[in-house]
Amino acid sequence: MSPLPLAVVNELDQADFVRAFGGIAEHTPWVAERAASARPFAGRLAMIEAFQRAVADARPDERLALLGAHPDLAGRAARAGDLADSSRREQAGAGLDSLDDEEFARFHALNDRYRARFGFPFILAVRGAGKAEILSAFAARIDGGEPEERLTALAQVCRIIRLRIEEQVA
Amino acid sequence: MSPLPLAVVNELDQADFVRAFGGIAEHTPWVAERAASARPFAGRLAMIEAFQRAVADARPDERLALLGAHPDLAGRAARAGDLADSSRREQAGAGLDSLDDEEFARFHALNDRYRARFGFPFILAVRGAGKAEILSAFAARIDGGEPEERLTALAQVCRIIRLRIEEQVA
Repeated sequence: MSPLPLAVVNELDQADFVRAFGGIAEHTPWVAERAASARPFAGRLAMIEAFQRAVADARPDERLALLGAHPDLAGRAARAGDLADSSRREQAGAGLDSLDDEEFARFHALNDRYRARFGFPFILAVRGAGKAEILSAFAARIDGGEPEERLTALAQVCRIIRLRIEEQVA
Repeated sequence: MSPLPLAVVNELDQADFVRAFGGIAEHTPWVAERAASARPFAGRLAMIEAFQRAVADARPDERLALLGAHPDLAGRAARAGDLADSSRREQAGAGLDSLDDEEFARFHALNDRYRARFGFPFILAVRGAGKAEILSAFAARIDGGEPEERLTALAQVCRIIRLRIEEQVA
């Protein structure tokens, strides 16, 4: 899909806006619903910030649900080809769609340990990163404090939102 | 100073606890004051999480003031030898105390641009990083959305708290 001009984005009715951008925040259309009311966006960065602000200002339980809506990196869903389009492309771009069995097992063990510790999946904006960088970020984050890690995960969700809007809006 | 055993930390009265750990969060003793009430800490990680939770649960204006209490990286205060002890050691460990004039000017320009954009200083847990990594983190963060950057800055504050407690408590 070619990027949508901002002028068009600003003129979509609410339902079409949510249809177009409901997946910017992984499986979480209320982010687009709330961002829509900040239109007209003065620029693409204003659009990005409206989406990010919807995340930052959400209730704690909503934020936790948003974190939980993200797929494991290189998880079973990825292997089964069962990911949202954006996630599939992002993970493939980082080489996560071509792990050998040992690498897959390593991600699987880290994902399980992380999820057991924090109660949500490990989230990282993987665009531009490779397997080695992702594993090193995993190692750096898995032993941190829970509040630190939750803030980091939310910041990564915001970063993913930014990268997706930069791709989809001209 | 050699690290304090956790058993001792748990037995300090409130005033001594705040005297000992009031600087864990940069120039912001209320973080230690609030964390103190979570004692006794079951372990060092529990102590770290109590401090981080005080940050994460603070009011938005308190969090903004905490961000603002951090010194610029390689800023004028650092050059004038005018930093809190922990910050001085952390910045020196990353080589920020020995910049030449050109490097100093570069940090200075980035710090000013960042502060003008976001309203708080660029905060990064620099322990273990070098000048090149710090400049690359700076470049990656300075153009992001404001909510994303505020979450990232708070996560870095939490990380700095963790590294300081790991150094000061056995």
